[in-house]
Amino acid sequence: MVDEPVRRERKSRRRAEGATPKAQRSVDYRQLRNPFAPQKAFSDDRIAEMHETALRILEELGIKVLLPEARKIYARAGAIVDDGTEMVRIGREVVDAAIRTAPKSFRLRGGQAQRDVTMEPGALVFQAGAGCPHLTDRARGRRPGTLSDYLETVKLTQSFDVLHTIGPHVEAQDVPINLRHYAMTRGGLVLSDKPCFVYARGTPQVEDTLEMIRIARGLDADAFRDDAWCYTVINTNSPRTLDIPMAQGLIDMAKAGQPSVVTPFCLAGAMAPITMAGAITLQHAEALAAIVLTQLVRPGAPVLYGSFSSNVDMKLGSPAFGTPEHVTATLGSGQLARLIGLPWRSAAASAANVADAQASTETMMSLWGCLMAGVTYVVHSAGWLEGGLTFSLEKMMIDLEALQTLAELCTPAPAEADDIGFDAIASVEPGGHFFAAEHTMQRYQTAFYDPLIADWSNFGSWTENGAMTADERATALWQKKLADFTPPPMDEARIEELDAFIAKRTEQGGAPPVS
Amino acid sequence: MVDEPVRRERKSRRRAEGATPKAQRSVDYRQLRNPFAPQKAFSDDRIAEMHETALRILEELGIKVLLPEARKIYARAGAIVDDGTEMVRIGREVVDAAIRTAPKSFRLRGGQAQRDVTMEPGALVFQAGAGCPHLTDRARGRRPGTLSDYLETVKLTQSFDVLHTIGPHVEAQDVPINLRHYAMTRGGLVLSDKPCFVYARGTPQVEDTLEMIRIARGLDADAFRDDAWCYTVINTNSPRTLDIPMAQGLIDMAKAGQPSVVTPFCLAGAMAPITMAGAITLQHAEALAAIVLTQLVRPGAPVLYGSFSSNVDMKLGSPAFGTPEHVTATLGSGQLARLIGLPWRSAAASAANVADAQASTETMMSLWGCLMAGVTYVVHSAGWLEGGLTFSLEKMMIDLEALQTLAELCTPAPAEADDIGFDAIASVEPGGHFFAAEHTMQRYQTAFYDPLIADWSNFGSWTENGAMTADERATALWQKKLADFTPPPMDEARIEELDAFIAKRTEQGGAPPVS
Repeated sequence: MVDEPVRRERKSRRRAEGATPKAQRSVDYRQLRNPFAPQKAFSDDRIAEMHETALRILEELGIKVLLPEARKIYARAGAIVDDGTEMVRIGREVVDAAIRTAPKSFRLRGGQAQRDVTMEPGALVFQAGAGCPHLTDRARGRRPGTLSDYLETVKLTQSFDVLHTIGPHVEAQDVPINLRHYAMTRGGLVLSDKPCFVYARGTPQVEDTLEMIRIARGLDADAFRDDAWCYTVINTNSPRTLDIPMAQGLIDMAKAGQPSVVTPFCLAGAMAPITMAGAITLQHAEALAAIVLTQLVRPGAPVLYGSFSSNVDMKLGSPAFGTPEHVTATLGSGQLARLIGLPWRSAAASAANVADAQASTETMMSLWGCLMAGVTYVVHSAGWLEGGLTFSLEKMMIDLEALQTLAELCTPAPAEADDIGFDAIASVEPGGHFFAAEHTMQRYQTAFYDPLIADWSNFGSWTENGAMTADERATALWQKKLADFTPPPMDEARIEELDAFIAKRTEQGGAPPVS
Repeated sequence: MVDEPVRRERKSRRRAEGATPKAQRSVDYRQLRNPFAPQKAFSDDRIAEMHETALRILEELGIKVLLPEARKIYARAGAIVDDGTEMVRIGREVVDAAIRTAPKSFRLRGGQAQRDVTMEPGALVFQAGAGCPHLTDRARGRRPGTLSDYLETVKLTQSFDVLHTIGPHVEAQDVPINLRHYAMTRGGLVLSDKPCFVYARGTPQVEDTLEMIRIARGLDADAFRDDAWCYTVINTNSPRTLDIPMAQGLIDMAKAGQPSVVTPFCLAGAMAPITMAGAITLQHAEALAAIVLTQLVRPGAPVLYGSFSSNVDMKLGSPAFGTPEHVTATLGSGQLARLIGLPWRSAAASAANVADAQASTETMMSLWGCLMAGVTYVVHSAGWLEGGLTFSLEKMMIDLEALQTLAELCTPAPAEADDIGFDAIASVEPGGHFFAAEHTMQRYQTAFYDPLIADWSNFGSWTENGAMTADERATALWQKKLADFTPPPMDEARIEELDAFIAKRTEQGGAPPVS
């Protein structure tokens, strides 16, 4: 009979309960290394050809750079610049030099050393969904994001060690855009000690934000500049355009010694060639152009290569994620990142409208794609729905289960002689069970991962308990985590200084975004 | 701004529609090769130690074999047999000899050559869930499985090329057990041309079933014995017991030249040591004992190594799947399978009670675990809920999306010079789009995978269309597939011969199962 033991097991439930108090399982999710070897989507010679083609694109076709200051920087390095068309053509020797000076590893620092993460090939850093204009949860419905919503996403991020950085999870649309960065940055700095995000919406906002981080972390200007304390995300405007705030962000962050996460968004068939090989080649050219700019501003400035290429639905024009094309693009991007040796970001993502089986299938497919691609920094890995239009608190909890499962796999399972357990096996008669074995009793309290959301009760018990789906159960979890939240310790004086700074800048009119 | 293009893209929907009729995308899902390199959970020396410990278990502790005929076969090969305790101790030279004679590759044949699959390391073969006493769907509810339910699962399996074999998906509980194998086997042979399953419930049922397959495939006894036309699944009764029908099944199938899929079900903390290293070591010992029996009966008999080890919830005693422990066990099992060089089976699985986000997260985690472990044959990869107690038609459709996505990844994406597309990129101005590019127009009808279930419409459209979750949408898909079903061509005379055989055997009282 097939898998008869499943049924048999269900019938004979036993408990392995000792008299001792429950030991706490503790696995460090803070600094993770990818346990898997990077995999390929394309042969090495095809990847070399894509790199070569990207260099030709930069040399022969060029990239449109809307910011005059950026064009000057490129020109000084020998790029051929046409201010009339705003086109910049970059020779391969300039690209090669930038690849040489860009750091292959850097530490991204939080408010405490235990929150630092290392950005380098082989490391594995997770961030929840970001950039969402809406937030949804089952208790309060789907709505335009508010500051209160954003602060909840920060608290929830802070509550799970497997999330490593704070991002702009939800837009605080109820705060005017000239003041929004104060409120959101303050939230990230006061409610969390994880490395934080800077909006690249023009120099005034960037400078404000960097100043706030210096205050919160208690650093002088030199100490700040010598380490990476925050990051921004730079999206090129595919195809082949670098707009003003993005170029300015690359320049400002590089000057401050802070990393940009360069992320072309090359949707195959829309803003990029319909072939995945073509889409990631365009992505590569655009990413290289942006990386070059950071290195021209400050050789050695930390920077991440980035990929967020997928396909569109050719009938709807809408982006799709977790597709074969998306996984292929991620794997190919990993190969290109390894070719230039830089740490890099990619994303888990879903285009589903609700935290259902489609959402989890897509997120898991793209998350494993990232893992197989040897990604350093997985953005949008929890809570991201509708291709980024909505952050879902239930989806965040569901995805955290997957992230914690992967994080567990980063620690090798014990396999010493006693774990292999000849004596334990000898101690149990054929047809017996291991519930009461000494080998089990020594380990049962901490042997296994304890799930967040998964309900493994049988159909009868599950039905009696209300037949709740995973997203329904997830509501209680985020509510509990918010209720239990306590912010990390922080010097009151720094909070006061931060608030004084915000008050002063608000009085001055804040900082309108530049576009 | 972070990922602004997502939103921008949603606003400007465009269609790439030509005047030409829609071309059909066609990707062969029938013979798949795993595109990824096998990964490890344990170092090679730990795996060697597990193998060594498994050999010690067989030599020093032994396995309890309930079938006297099997004990005789072991004894003849030099194993130390105690008929009083039914214990069989097997020397490593016997194990080594069996590993040498077991084929490293064999073809499992269907009713047409295009349905044959190769069982060997590197191949990737999928089967839907099996062994479920219940079936559920949203239209008709959860109920004990019937023959009609089983036949529907066969039709649906036949309808998707990415499912490669027929299994005992649902128990036809409305058919008496002495006649059930006739009805179910007939269904598999008449409604599908994919390789089929044999219940190992004693020699009379096995012989009946093999005879039916010979009739359906139009083979004489020699032609049948020279190839693998079907398979059975053999679960050892962990720990260390091989019961009567399982031992008999190994013997009968080996004699007939047909493969057994040897699958210990080692739930860590219950029927196996609580450590994953220990659980798969016990699994390995039990699998080797069963493989030995097949090779002693007929050297060269096809056989699959198998793993279905996971952990239990130590509070409930119920099995868990898609956990870190489950993935670790699968990866370690792959290492042990590679050590002995045999094709092997593992499983994707979920303990969820409904086709929700938990179900998909667990199935995806275990499915990717299989893929990373280099598995040959992924059983339970679509439709399996409640740890195998229920087959869900909606879950089957949802999982097929994932299987088709993986199957797409088995075919390398095009990456010739024209696919990389320098000219295409040159043809689109910075800030333009590729929708109307010649490069796009040549490819848009067939470039991308077309989803089964995924809905990529935006929140507004999705809401207008009823705000359906993936499992709700899945109902319409299986209903359509059943409505559209046509059985594969089959010689009427063979069906008549099959029915005559069944009628004769039914009149004779059928074949009660042996236990």
